[in-house]
Amino acid sequence: MRVGGKAYRSIWWEPGAESVQIIDQTLLPHEFRIAALTTLLDAVRAIETMQVRGAPLVGVTAAYGLALAARADPSNANLEEAAARLAATRPTAVNLRFALDRMHQHLLTVPEDSRSMAAFDRATEMADEEVRLSQAIGNHGIGLIRAAAAKKNGQPVHILTHCNAGWLASVDLGTATAPIYMAHDEGIAVHVWVDETRPRNQGAALTAWELGRHGVPHTIIVDNAGGYLMQRGMVDLVIVGTDRTTAAGDVCNKIGTYLKALAAHDNGVPFFAAVPSTSIDFSLECGRSIPIETRSGLEVTHISGQGRNGLIETVRIAPEGSRASNYAFDVTPARLVTGLITERGVIAANKSALAETFADRIAADAELMAAT
Amino acid sequence: MRVGGKAYRSIWWEPGAESVQIIDQTLLPHEFRIAALTTLLDAVRAIETMQVRGAPLVGVTAAYGLALAARADPSNANLEEAAARLAATRPTAVNLRFALDRMHQHLLTVPEDSRSMAAFDRATEMADEEVRLSQAIGNHGIGLIRAAAAKKNGQPVHILTHCNAGWLASVDLGTATAPIYMAHDEGIAVHVWVDETRPRNQGAALTAWELGRHGVPHTIIVDNAGGYLMQRGMVDLVIVGTDRTTAAGDVCNKIGTYLKALAAHDNGVPFFAAVPSTSIDFSLECGRSIPIETRSGLEVTHISGQGRNGLIETVRIAPEGSRASNYAFDVTPARLVTGLITERGVIAANKSALAETFADRIAADAELMAAT
Repeated sequence: MRVGGKAYRSIWWEPGAESVQIIDQTLLPHEFRIAALTTLLDAVRAIETMQVRGAPLVGVTAAYGLALAARADPSNANLEEAAARLAATRPTAVNLRFALDRMHQHLLTVPEDSRSMAAFDRATEMADEEVRLSQAIGNHGIGLIRAAAAKKNGQPVHILTHCNAGWLASVDLGTATAPIYMAHDEGIAVHVWVDETRPRNQGAALTAWELGRHGVPHTIIVDNAGGYLMQRGMVDLVIVGTDRTTAAGDVCNKIGTYLKALAAHDNGVPFFAAVPSTSIDFSLECGRSIPIETRSGLEVTHISGQGRNGLIETVRIAPEGSRASNYAFDVTPARLVTGLITERGVIAANKSALAETFADRIAADAELMAAT
Repeated sequence: MRVGGKAYRSIWWEPGAESVQIIDQTLLPHEFRIAALTTLLDAVRAIETMQVRGAPLVGVTAAYGLALAARADPSNANLEEAAARLAATRPTAVNLRFALDRMHQHLLTVPEDSRSMAAFDRATEMADEEVRLSQAIGNHGIGLIRAAAAKKNGQPVHILTHCNAGWLASVDLGTATAPIYMAHDEGIAVHVWVDETRPRNQGAALTAWELGRHGVPHTIIVDNAGGYLMQRGMVDLVIVGTDRTTAAGDVCNKIGTYLKALAAHDNGVPFFAAVPSTSIDFSLECGRSIPIETRSGLEVTHISGQGRNGLIETVRIAPEGSRASNYAFDVTPARLVTGLITERGVIAANKSALAETFADRIAADAELMAAT
């Protein structure tokens, strides 16, 4: 997607610099700065400090991280250690584990002296694959927006989204945002309600920034507001991303998604999750089994932003002595999900639809599992 | 309630100073500062800038504001103008209109040269009445907490609350918090999940501060988290306040309350609103008719807190160029409300229960309406 007129992805291999380039997302929306990853540790830190985040991007970054490790030392022992180190960075998104398993298995079939190049090639393929998945999700999801637009007599289609499932969360185009960008580019009037998504404000900081750069009309709202908007008929469609969707269609996503799904259900608003197959965990049925990351309470009690002097300041917004909890994700049960927008079409959020649509992937997963 | 060992109310008449004293709530939780209101305009500004907020406290402040106006000029014309000015400050809480109507009607029966003193007396009576209502709500609501505690084998009863319906929102003890403070004082183990309540963070800034001063165990959570906690069985009871509850039991309260009610309903968690009769609007049945205040988007895009140097700083947390909407309240339909904790008991949230419990009040309202 374009930033200041120039096309970017959220991650790319820079041949001249011999490094992996990322956009440092901890600085957005205030500063657009590229950072270089040259070692495994750089990749681990980029994921841990959330310079990169978003399930698909975390997966691709981990793949590049393993490539950086292979460049330093392509031995089996080092690859194993590096994969374990990367896998431990964040627990909830399944893309991380999936990407590492695929990379690792692939590299074990390659002679040691070719592994580094093979690893970068494979990581780049995985990045390209995420872009293709986003494009396919956009192609399928745009049908939902076109259908909504047909009922609006030229009035904008109001789409609510939570957190950032945009191109910053994947590699390009985004997952939840892919149909939105494509509809906008096609000339359909769309307007996006952007949940700010406390505590890290990834909606306000990242999604609003993205949409603004691309010229998509949008309005930031607090996470409390979506229910009211739906009660008043001000939302036509909800589209969110996912960090892990189960074989039964339970959608794990950023904390608060479940509340919006409840409100959508209560008000007859269609609720869709954009789900690339790289975010589906066919080994789990019940969303309750997904490990939910807990993060520091400091993300709740303190907040950073741009002060009047232009500098980024951190301020305390809670009383001293009050503690805070910080659960990062919740699970929306499949019964509240109108459908899943996958790269193979919009399907029902249930076991049989998923099994039918991804029979080959389920077989491949079983094979991979058998190999490890 | 006590602050630093000294008992306070949220508003009081200070005879020596000949002024109305308030706690400037815009400075909390960082600074505890008393402010004096000496003119009608002081009272108007205190309500508009939210130095005082919370439906019961706004009502009492308006009553004192009318007394301050009567002190300056007790004429009918001035009282009428002052009442209109105060009524226009905030649209959603019914307490404001109710307090002004009652004060105004009362003062018209008093000779002009006695009006000032009569007005302060009446305003103080109304403050005292709110305290009695809170105590009665506490006495009835504590039964719910005792019942929950009986099932917990000494483990704390986990109560989730949204926004601030504490003593800072009323005059003393609070509405939603009254049963909590009384249960805690009685030795029942309670723990409060405090929704931070964006955009003004009145949960984190005021409720957590209040609970901390009184030593009640509590944890701040983002507004997104309540659904997850309820899914995991970590909430035994939800108690919220209200800015206006209709004759049919629809509960208007701070934006986001509806989302928590949906989650409570979906998970079988009892959801109660603490409702002093001064917050009931018997002239309205349907919550959809309640005017919902919209506030500046700057409350969403910017936030204030305490910087490292100890000073209060305002920082921008959204991209430049992105606009924000800021609806301040939503309405939880009666079907999602387990019960209303009123000063006359815990009753069902429906028209017949309200009509039966408050038959005298309904008659008095009709009389007041006929008189105006």
